[in-house]
Amino acid sequence: METSIHPTAIISKHAVLEENVSIGPYSIIHDNVHLGSGGIVGPYCILGEPLANFYQDEVYENPTLDIGCDAVIRSQTILYAGSQLGDHLETGNRAIIREKSSIGHHVRIGMHAEIQGFCTIGNYTRINSAVHVGQFSMIGNFVWLFPFVVLTNDPHPPSEAVEGVKISDYAVIGAKSVLLPGIHIDSHALVGAGSVVYHDVPAGIVVAGNPARRIATIDQLKDRITGESTYPWPEHFSRGMPWQEVGFKAWIAGHSERKE
Amino acid sequence: METSIHPTAIISKHAVLEENVSIGPYSIIHDNVHLGSGGIVGPYCILGEPLANFYQDEVYENPTLDIGCDAVIRSQTILYAGSQLGDHLETGNRAIIREKSSIGHHVRIGMHAEIQGFCTIGNYTRINSAVHVGQFSMIGNFVWLFPFVVLTNDPHPPSEAVEGVKISDYAVIGAKSVLLPGIHIDSHALVGAGSVVYHDVPAGIVVAGNPARRIATIDQLKDRITGESTYPWPEHFSRGMPWQEVGFKAWIAGHSERKE
Amino acid sequence: METSIHPTAIISKHAVLEENVSIGPYSIIHDNVHLGSGGIVGPYCILGEPLANFYQDEVYENPTLDIGCDAVIRSQTILYAGSQLGDHLETGNRAIIREKSSIGHHVRIGMHAEIQGFCTIGNYTRINSAVHVGQFSMIGNFVWLFPFVVLTNDPHPPSEAVEGVKISDYAVIGAKSVLLPGIHIDSHALVGAGSVVYHDVPAGIVVAGNPARRIATIDQLKDRITGESTYPWPEHFSRGMPWQEVGFKAWIAGHSERKE
Repeated sequence: METSIHPTAIISKHAVLEENVSIGPYSIIHDNVHLGSGGIVGPYCILGEPLANFYQDEVYENPTLDIGCDAVIRSQTILYAGSQLGDHLETGNRAIIREKSSIGHHVRIGMHAEIQGFCTIGNYTRINSAVHVGQFSMIGNFVWLFPFVVLTNDPHPPSEAVEGVKISDYAVIGAKSVLLPGIHIDSHALVGAGSVVYHDVPAGIVVAGNPARRIATIDQLKDRITGESTYPWPEHFSRGMPWQEVGFKAWIAGHSERKE
Repeated sequence: METSIHPTAIISKHAVLEENVSIGPYSIIHDNVHLGSGGIVGPYCILGEPLANFYQDEVYENPTLDIGCDAVIRSQTILYAGSQLGDHLETGNRAIIREKSSIGHHVRIGMHAEIQGFCTIGNYTRINSAVHVGQFSMIGNFVWLFPFVVLTNDPHPPSEAVEGVKISDYAVIGAKSVLLPGIHIDSHALVGAGSVVYHDVPAGIVVAGNPARRIATIDQLKDRITGESTYPWPEHFSRGMPWQEVGFKAWIAGHSERKE
Repeated sequence: METSIHPTAIISKHAVLEENVSIGPYSIIHDNVHLGSGGIVGPYCILGEPLANFYQDEVYENPTLDIGCDAVIRSQTILYAGSQLGDHLETGNRAIIREKSSIGHHVRIGMHAEIQGFCTIGNYTRINSAVHVGQFSMIGNFVWLFPFVVLTNDPHPPSEAVEGVKISDYAVIGAKSVLLPGIHIDSHALVGAGSVVYHDVPAGIVVAGNPARRIATIDQLKDRITGESTYPWPEHFSRGMPWQEVGFKAWIAGHSERKE
């Protein structure tokens, strides 16, 4: 692919585009954006959206937005200035990633999802459509947030206190669940759809309901038809994951020294 | 109305626009879109949004998007390539309909609603704002999905298993409810607002809560003020419906041979 | 700041822009929009979006959209024709305010939020991201609606009956709560995150759950770490509020004659 910039795109001369990028019609790239090689940007995207003080401050300078290589930024996505986004980022239509976020590689952010800023997200994490990730959330690697999950952060709203949610590697949060401020969802835990989670969830535990209560351990969950185990999910699902070729057990054995 | 295409619209020469259409400023119409006569397309719409393999495949060809006559496509709507959309479609601002969907006539899709693709939707169905219709959902005729309803489809997420929700004719799903994978909401059933529905709901039954439980039959529901019956809803509501002139009972009697 | 209108913006000659406004790229300003002085409008905004009868009526005339001074309208916001919006309005990306709404001054409407029209909203109210405010809602001053709150309005959907929610001054609605039609959340009441509220909530009462039940009075809520009271919130939070300089007690004493 050669570089291709639509004539209607508006690109700051203070932006840096590496080789072989594609910029769609009517997109806007602001000052101090660095787009890695091979990046594809759909129509009507905004890269480097100015922060709030742009509207108040005479001498505002747009902080750097750093996007890794081979990004796929779908139409109408808005990426604020001031974040570090890893290689192979993929966004759905109209995703928003606000400022001061640090996102790993091979991450997907779904349509209408909102990363509210000051967040840390690991590698290979999947954030589905219309998920709301509150400020100061800390999300590990290989985490799944299904549609319309909300991560809150204010223990007695409105206040100046902020307690971000923490989600460890491989955890799965079912659609439309709400996580209360400051809770920790530990590794491989599973939150059922529609839950309201007030308390920490230990590793490998399944919770559901409002308020969410412990209902099982993940190894007790079976396929309704085959009766086989369905969790830990990486042993059964590999599409787009680094263990796609060798399987999870072989892959994790080869990475046992790894610490996220 | 004569055909009117704003000079800033970007329209593929491989798109087919029938007579008397209107295309708003900054809209984009891709290859192989067929827009029926009388269609109105607001600003910043994308018709024929490319599918995922567009970003990976050198010889990608955009599948056909077929839109019936007299559509009203409000501003910032995104309609993916590869769907069949019936006459008199109406979309709210920023609705999204993804690929491989088959939608009947006189359907309305609200603002921010997401039809995730591979879905079947009947005639006269109303999908309100910010509803999320998971892949492989099957929705009948005259169905109402109120704001922020979510239809899930993965019985043990993340997995390769897919069990779409099925909703039969005249069913009503209250705002912000979640339907678990593979369940069937039968004809004229009613799901109260904010419910989390784990099990099938029989015809004419009312459920509510998390988990949703049976609370009544629809004929037990009365108007709080007048004490009169309020369901089946078609006997009391006709705006935009085909029985608007003659009333539901006369209309349904004339269609008794009808099978959806 | 001098007036600055991007050359790609499309501005009706029947729009009135006061002095010192800034209009971003690709924005559209329709007939009969009045934008007060100092207003900043980001890219891809639509001011004066036509109402539904525009699509049916040969002689449609766009009703007036009146926006006060010093507005900050972030990118992709859509403001319908036919509303009155007060000074110092601030919108997040892609907020939507529909017609026949009356909104006070110093109000913030978050990203993806939907004000569905025919609503009244007081001063200094904060409507966070992806909140859905149903038609005919009445919201007071200093009210907080946290992300993904839904205000419904149809007591037996679908019907022609409409009972808007009423929320009094200083009330706080936690993230992802649903308020059923016609209920009244009284002054300083607090609704916990993820609640489904079927009944009125008296002043100063805390409710939570599905169905929401009374769990405390607001003065019983303490900070988890310090043990200090956290409500009434205005005594502990002042950012952006008119009591920022003098404190809430002094400010309210000086406004004791005030009636909202």
